[in-house]
Amino acid sequence: MALITLLTDFGLKDEYVGVMKGVIAAINPDVRTIDICHHVAPQSIVHGAYLLAAAYDCFPADTVHVAVVDPGVGGTRRILALACDGHRFVVPDNGLIERVAARRRITEVVAVEERRFFREPVSRTFHGRDIFAPVAAHWAAGQPLAAFGPAVDPRHVVHGVVPASPLPTADAVDGVVIATDRFGNLMTNIEAAAVDRLGGVDADPPLIVAVAGRSIGPIVRTYNDAPPQSPLALIGSRGLLEISINRGDARQVLNAARGDRVRVQRPLPPSPGCKPTR
Amino acid sequence: MALITLLTDFGLKDEYVGVMKGVIAAINPDVRTIDICHHVAPQSIVHGAYLLAAAYDCFPADTVHVAVVDPGVGGTRRILALACDGHRFVVPDNGLIERVAARRRITEVVAVEERRFFREPVSRTFHGRDIFAPVAAHWAAGQPLAAFGPAVDPRHVVHGVVPASPLPTADAVDGVVIATDRFGNLMTNIEAAAVDRLGGVDADPPLIVAVAGRSIGPIVRTYNDAPPQSPLALIGSRGLLEISINRGDARQVLNAARGDRVRVQRPLPPSPGCKPTR
Amino acid sequence: MALITLLTDFGLKDEYVGVMKGVIAAINPDVRTIDICHHVAPQSIVHGAYLLAAAYDCFPADTVHVAVVDPGVGGTRRILALACDGHRFVVPDNGLIERVAARRRITEVVAVEERRFFREPVSRTFHGRDIFAPVAAHWAAGQPLAAFGPAVDPRHVVHGVVPASPLPTADAVDGVVIATDRFGNLMTNIEAAAVDRLGGVDADPPLIVAVAGRSIGPIVRTYNDAPPQSPLALIGSRGLLEISINRGDARQVLNAARGDRVRVQRPLPPSPGCKPTR
Repeated sequence: MALITLLTDFGLKDEYVGVMKGVIAAINPDVRTIDICHHVAPQSIVHGAYLLAAAYDCFPADTVHVAVVDPGVGGTRRILALACDGHRFVVPDNGLIERVAARRRITEVVAVEERRFFREPVSRTFHGRDIFAPVAAHWAAGQPLAAFGPAVDPRHVVHGVVPASPLPTADAVDGVVIATDRFGNLMTNIEAAAVDRLGGVDADPPLIVAVAGRSIGPIVRTYNDAPPQSPLALIGSRGLLEISINRGDARQVLNAARGDRVRVQRPLPPSPGCKPTR
Repeated sequence: MALITLLTDFGLKDEYVGVMKGVIAAINPDVRTIDICHHVAPQSIVHGAYLLAAAYDCFPADTVHVAVVDPGVGGTRRILALACDGHRFVVPDNGLIERVAARRRITEVVAVEERRFFREPVSRTFHGRDIFAPVAAHWAAGQPLAAFGPAVDPRHVVHGVVPASPLPTADAVDGVVIATDRFGNLMTNIEAAAVDRLGGVDADPPLIVAVAGRSIGPIVRTYNDAPPQSPLALIGSRGLLEISINRGDARQVLNAARGDRVRVQRPLPPSPGCKPTR
Repeated sequence: MALITLLTDFGLKDEYVGVMKGVIAAINPDVRTIDICHHVAPQSIVHGAYLLAAAYDCFPADTVHVAVVDPGVGGTRRILALACDGHRFVVPDNGLIERVAARRRITEVVAVEERRFFREPVSRTFHGRDIFAPVAAHWAAGQPLAAFGPAVDPRHVVHGVVPASPLPTADAVDGVVIATDRFGNLMTNIEAAAVDRLGGVDADPPLIVAVAGRSIGPIVRTYNDAPPQSPLALIGSRGLLEISINRGDARQVLNAARGDRVRVQRPLPPSPGCKPTR
């Protein structure tokens, strides 16, 4: 059974997501659609790119992932259908695929141009319904990728919109808060590998984490390693550094927001003649 | 494979929508349910009627659409099962079907009364679970429409609750804001045809749009036809006039709300001897 | 066709629910997943326990219900797979199953320990994706319950976390507000049976209901039995006492919140020589 996922910034307040599923069902009644998330911060390509990368490979190989965070709808940006890491994607060519493509090579891309697969009349404001959804439905139903438009050189896919994950120096790595989640946890763009290069969770003395200049405790393994209501840092389920409050809301308690700077660093060595008290 | 859609004002904070799907699955395991939207403004029949009309015909013919915006639950209002435009609907008889029926003739209606299709005991407060969902499931499973209750003359279906779309005079059309969407766009009840009768998007000189007496720029084709952060009007994906801010939130910036008056008019002719400056 | 439901406090702002469905689809493509609700108050085991009990038996027998409200994730709490009332459940052993088990005997329980069914590597923070979802998918696909880990004595399942429904005295029953719903209705933990023991909806003179010491009108049968904008009490669709405002929002109007005390009592008898005025 074919599977299509949907990831958008449309929210669920309106009929937008529902009608995309209707268009898919009308073309391909055998396909199932699963929502990854519709609450990407409005028009935030960066947030969308991180969620897509965190989610796609939990799904079966060959799934068609439709991601629509598309401030350029109705303008000149291209729509791409592409294959990467054994999965299929239909996305605007605006950087939304960058976090997926940072880890795995895009193997094939076309610019979606064949109007016979579109829903007519094509509106200027809702390509999710009129282009993305029907193209995904036809692709999942067996149309070959090449049917949707001319091949594109993977090197010409838009990139540079979503900042690369920060590389550590000898002593520190500097990142930012990408998003906050339902529980008030802060998701950063600092990858587990960068933390490991500094010595990781077991570094001795422990690494120091700071958000917007404010020091958080050491990096721990799980929420309950910190006392209730205390801030902590850990490698979250996406393989990224997260800042949390055990049984609390870090966004509120730390007054943190998307874009805040996050630093992980080795502590300064103790002054000579002075013993560490830990 | 049979398909049922759900459109309600139940929100997703509670288990209400989930149990409707459970009741459907228990009766008819082969049916799929798709959410159109559950965030109709609470008890707003007008909002629900517009969303239903905007969404239903994206789905395959013969889909059963269950729409529940039902401030009269437990009282004397009827529940209807009806056929219109090749689709099937189960709705309270309170005007919720009006926008669909304004465009296409209702071909067959029954009053849902046959208790053998209901979930017992029937509560006084949640007919979505106890009547709407099981009736839809049985209908999708092959029960004939007539099984659910006595025929009703389509002319006796409640109407007049949802105001008709406004008709233009020679120079203007006056409507209202029906709802605001996730992005802060304002959906009005002014149809594309009314704008076209005044000269449309290409009118020269251009038509003038005002919300609550405040003038918006001319009608454009897509968001990016206005500078970033500027207000604009366009025919949205539902075929209705919408007011937006390019890459911004019109509800906030214009301080607009449901019920605000919207006017589209031809500009006054220039005074004699005075050249238009455009 | 196998069916899995999901009930969590994850919200829909993130990809968490979507990836659980992806993990399930990757293991068992034939299973359907239905959301009961993802807006349990964050980390509120009590709220989750009431929603699970209100919803599960609307679904077909043998459904696998995955419920994750899990403040102890990554710690030492057990995960249970259990059978109760002809349904199947995968839950943390923290009281979340208590409201279901208060009415029906748990017939079989295992502690989920067999790592070969888990998604590797198992994170410390997202067992929903790495343990709950894959175990449910394998169970729905036909694995026997005993495959997931050692049997547990049902008497040793955690209990006492969710307060039992209050028992009435001769004249009154005292409960609390468990949650408020989308419409601002107040759900209490007072069961219909307790109200019936005091004389029920038809008691004469009528029972008196108070929230946080403030008197509400008598218990009615449906919203429209009270004048518009008036407070009322009724037995809601879950078989629990609810406090509402007809066509209004009780949470706002009564300034009520989770934890507020609710009392249902017989009115004091009239003083001798004084006729009741009703």
